Amino acid sequence: MEKIVVPCSSSPSLARSVSDVLGAQVAEVERKRFPDGEMYVRVLSDVAGREAFVLGNTNRDDAYLELLLTLDACRENGASRVIAVVPYFGYARQHMVYKRGEAVSSKVMTLTIGEFADRIITVEIHDEMTLKYSKRPFMNVSVYESMSAYYSRKGVDLVVSPDDGGLHRAEMLAKGLECDFFAINKKRIDSRTVSMEVPNVDVKGKRVLLVDDIISTGGTIAKAASLLRDMGASSVYVTAVHGVFANNSVSKIQEVVDEVAVTNTIEGIFSKIDIAPELASAMEVYMDGRIPEKL
Amino acid sequence: MEKIVVPCSSSPSLARSVSDVLGAQVAEVERKRFPDGEMYVRVLSDVAGREAFVLGNTNRDDAYLELLLTLDACRENGASRVIAVVPYFGYARQHMVYKRGEAVSSKVMTLTIGEFADRIITVEIHDEMTLKYSKRPFMNVSVYESMSAYYSRKGVDLVVSPDDGGLHRAEMLAKGLECDFFAINKKRIDSRTVSMEVPNVDVKGKRVLLVDDIISTGGTIAKAASLLRDMGASSVYVTAVHGVFANNSVSKIQEVVDEVAVTNTIEGIFSKIDIAPELASAMEVYMDGRIPEKL
Repeated sequence: MEKIVVPCSSSPSLARSVSDVLGAQVAEVERKRFPDGEMYVRVLSDVAGREAFVLGNTNRDDAYLELLLTLDACRENGASRVIAVVPYFGYARQHMVYKRGEAVSSKVMTLTIGEFADRIITVEIHDEMTLKYSKRPFMNVSVYESMSAYYSRKGVDLVVSPDDGGLHRAEMLAKGLECDFFAINKKRIDSRTVSMEVPNVDVKGKRVLLVDDIISTGGTIAKAASLLRDMGASSVYVTAVHGVFANNSVSKIQEVVDEVAVTNTIEGIFSKIDIAPELASAMEVYMDGRIPEKL
Repeated sequence: MEKIVVPCSSSPSLARSVSDVLGAQVAEVERKRFPDGEMYVRVLSDVAGREAFVLGNTNRDDAYLELLLTLDACRENGASRVIAVVPYFGYARQHMVYKRGEAVSSKVMTLTIGEFADRIITVEIHDEMTLKYSKRPFMNVSVYESMSAYYSRKGVDLVVSPDDGGLHRAEMLAKGLECDFFAINKKRIDSRTVSMEVPNVDVKGKRVLLVDDIISTGGTIAKAASLLRDMGASSVYVTAVHGVFANNSVSKIQEVVDEVAVTNTIEGIFSKIDIAPELASAMEVYMDGRIPEKL
């Protein structure tokens, strides 16, 4: 079945590089706002009878609605199958009611996207519990190969996670880089204070790579970077899958590190790591009849 | 069953007046943005075992997502039934593919709201075809009684629709006001020019009320008002159900009319007509077991 990649405005560059890997067309899409502020989406390329991969994020109000409208445009115009590819799945932090009265935002995202898509693919979702809400096959893609490839060119002696929860990420990256890894022991003292303790590891003179899944406000990662610098690391690199960089937090991090590089799930000047190889492989799993009902 | 009215941020005042009519509690709701820009909604009042009426509009990206999250918060926290009350149903203009490749936005709204609500109530939807997409009972409420009541206090001799399509609205209002009505013959010459012709009706010295369903850019209504003024109308009032007033268009209208007044489906300084009586009646239809499966 012929395939077509349909980009939302969050992911033009990733759509192009994924299309290159797949040898697929990138659809032209018209987007505008009506005078009253409502959004308009029209997929100009013909999607009829084709397998449409719609690439778009959900972390912003406008991006989320644009994704739904673009999925619907493909379906309404005869795509034989519509697959939502959500490089950065926003609202994945809240997969349950923590305090009475809360909305479960990750479920809202999953169910509404599934209303218009036959399959959902995402990248390193913050919490895999989100997948359980889906009525559609839902694949969560890891991108540590692309990340390792990027840092193997730089040379890294140690991979560090800023907290225990991210130890598996440090491990995955260290495996690709054939080096050691560890997690900083992070303790929350109160709502404003966090203590960090490095286990009995010598970082002196070493090239250290700090890794997290999301850099949002960047507070934790900046603090961890300073600590490693103070302990004598010769270079400190910071990476993450998703670079949200709220409130221009990247400048705070840049002050204490040698380089910041994230993947292109969220596109920006620091998204230097292209995840097209892994994403395209995941998309191929859903192609040409090789479509498992459950993964 | 005990009922509770849960307001979204688009409809705080309407929620209060509807609650007064129903004798229902207005829920307290906490809303905030996380540092990364994501929205958080928590219904602080207890909704467990209650019939929750969630009031919110869908015409803005943020309002739409807030409505979905608020509906979900009610459902997740044990409301026995959740009813979406959408005073202004945005995105109702596009209920089909007009040009190849378009999204059907009214269907996207209807299906996603229906994912979290058992019933949907709206007010004077732009196109009733939108209702056909709903898997849930969906009621469209008329509010001409409240509008007539408002203008009967002012005194109106003639109700005028700016185009043929709105003639039934002029008729409904004129019936309540016990006066005559007609429609201006509007012809589109090209994309920038519209001609208007008044049928053989004498407006000289008369108090004229112009009515439309939505005032968006206000171009048509301002032109119609000028025409009636030039023909000697003694007073020209302008009303609509939904006052969107894109790009501050209301100032353009105010220059040529005596008063602009719209209903409170969209709240603002011109929403002087309270539709709580009709909306509360519609909500009562869904209450206490009187819940028709199809309307």
